[in-house]
Amino acid sequence: MIKNDLTSHTIRVRVPGTSANCGPGFDCIGLACTIYNDLQLTLLKEPKLIIETKGEGADNIPSDDRNIVWRSIQTLLERVGADNEYKGAIIRMENHIPLSRGLGSSAAAIVAGIKAANAILGNPLNRNELLKLATEIEGHPDNVAPALFGGVTVSVVNKGQVQTFSFVPKLRLKLVVAVPDFPLATRLARQVLPTEVPMKDAIFNIGRASMLIGALIKGKERFLQNAFDDALHQPYRTGLVPGMEEVFKAAKAAGAIGVALSGAGPCLIAFTIDRDHVEQEVASSMAQAFLNNNIKTKSLILTLDIRGAVVQNN
Amino acid sequence: MIKNDLTSHTIRVRVPGTSANCGPGFDCIGLACTIYNDLQLTLLKEPKLIIETKGEGADNIPSDDRNIVWRSIQTLLERVGADNEYKGAIIRMENHIPLSRGLGSSAAAIVAGIKAANAILGNPLNRNELLKLATEIEGHPDNVAPALFGGVTVSVVNKGQVQTFSFVPKLRLKLVVAVPDFPLATRLARQVLPTEVPMKDAIFNIGRASMLIGALIKGKERFLQNAFDDALHQPYRTGLVPGMEEVFKAAKAAGAIGVALSGAGPCLIAFTIDRDHVEQEVASSMAQAFLNNNIKTKSLILTLDIRGAVVQNN
Repeated sequence: MIKNDLTSHTIRVRVPGTSANCGPGFDCIGLACTIYNDLQLTLLKEPKLIIETKGEGADNIPSDDRNIVWRSIQTLLERVGADNEYKGAIIRMENHIPLSRGLGSSAAAIVAGIKAANAILGNPLNRNELLKLATEIEGHPDNVAPALFGGVTVSVVNKGQVQTFSFVPKLRLKLVVAVPDFPLATRLARQVLPTEVPMKDAIFNIGRASMLIGALIKGKERFLQNAFDDALHQPYRTGLVPGMEEVFKAAKAAGAIGVALSGAGPCLIAFTIDRDHVEQEVASSMAQAFLNNNIKTKSLILTLDIRGAVVQNN
Repeated sequence: MIKNDLTSHTIRVRVPGTSANCGPGFDCIGLACTIYNDLQLTLLKEPKLIIETKGEGADNIPSDDRNIVWRSIQTLLERVGADNEYKGAIIRMENHIPLSRGLGSSAAAIVAGIKAANAILGNPLNRNELLKLATEIEGHPDNVAPALFGGVTVSVVNKGQVQTFSFVPKLRLKLVVAVPDFPLATRLARQVLPTEVPMKDAIFNIGRASMLIGALIKGKERFLQNAFDDALHQPYRTGLVPGMEEVFKAAKAAGAIGVALSGAGPCLIAFTIDRDHVEQEVASSMAQAFLNNNIKTKSLILTLDIRGAVVQNN
């Protein structure tokens, strides 16, 4: 294939939405799901910026220097010393991940930008270096890790270094997401959390997070029954998502094996076993429970994304 | 084989020592190791009690009604309604698990008693019921779970019900244990712990415990490097085990992949990869570091027990 000078600097990337915490894994566990943002990036030598956004957030996402995709690209260009070569970009986004709902839209924007720019430059950074960079930009690895790696991820930060363990569970899950019609800033959802917590609540989460990871890897359904429960963040956030407890109960009554606040919310996510074919019923039950609390929602029925961010073939 | 009336009520059981917590898995994670207590139990219809103990604790373990093996047997007999039939026992213990050192000697005694009595009665209780009973007697599942199940265990308590997930890691570990020449009561080691802990420390342990379980199941060595670290209990207990930090450093310098306080201590346990053949050097380094702090130790080089408590063939 013969490419002209322009197209050789253009690349398309697809990045999954993500759900952080998964109940007990506060600030550690995350997963990637089958809802995507697509980015077509052209790096320009001249200082010119064209940003077009379709889909989710099209009306709200800035199309100037404040744009998070562009800022992430600039950070990568600086990191690899290519900021003198490339001073502008054409950014075309098509977004399906809802904004500020707890499905990792900002992580997806960051990962899309650096993954695409890195690919155009011939991949000077490997995946772990991209993880480090994305974590620096986002401030924490909760969503950027699954967005980059796919599957289920466990991330720890050790002396400023982030490490992510990722895997594909040995059972087929459906992810039923209720997306409320109001946004929730992560900053706000963090303010309600205490800085000190009861030791017994810490133990509660350690056991369940460990069991969640073990049961998912081994595909042992019966150990998932209590493994999505949390004592460290969700109880403090019930006030931010009206009806949360009721929606959780409705989802479980309809056959969900576990329920959780997705990231900092306001999305709620229910986990079902594919074979049970209860995802539609779980979705309706969650929507109805939200409606009882005067919250309108959109339902998403997703599965696990196992590839993470990928460069698309042109 | 023809058995007379006496031997038909006699059974031998072997129970492994255990190490609880394994660093980040405070009160949740445990493992069984290749050091054992043997029990030969004969249930008697008459109210007569003969208790003989050889090996560890022979001089200290009570040989009357206060004996924990006998008390556990009685609890099982009551639970299954056989306490009217059997009113006495001949208990012969041969113990290799050191007492009050953090290797689960009391859990082993409890599990030995109920496993043997249950076997004599034709196994009226299944393994999960034995777990429940042993947890009631011990007060927590940390050690009784791995003593019963073998391998590595993750236990959670949900509304009074204990659930244990157990697995055999996909890599061959050596467990190097430094056994100090002084006992430490678990009660004492619990008193030094705060009831409230920083949220960031809880998150620290959730991530590492989850990664520990994932890395062990998948056999991913490089994810073990930080996975044994703890922020929730060991830092508060350093004062109870003089030289703890120094011993940890020495073990790591000698090639251990991770180090931890074994249960509530005072044993310290280092984890090495079998293939590395560093266990002897790690053991010497730990002993020397303890000696620098005027603590004499015995070294044990063990591997993982993967069977848990077993009834021995006669």
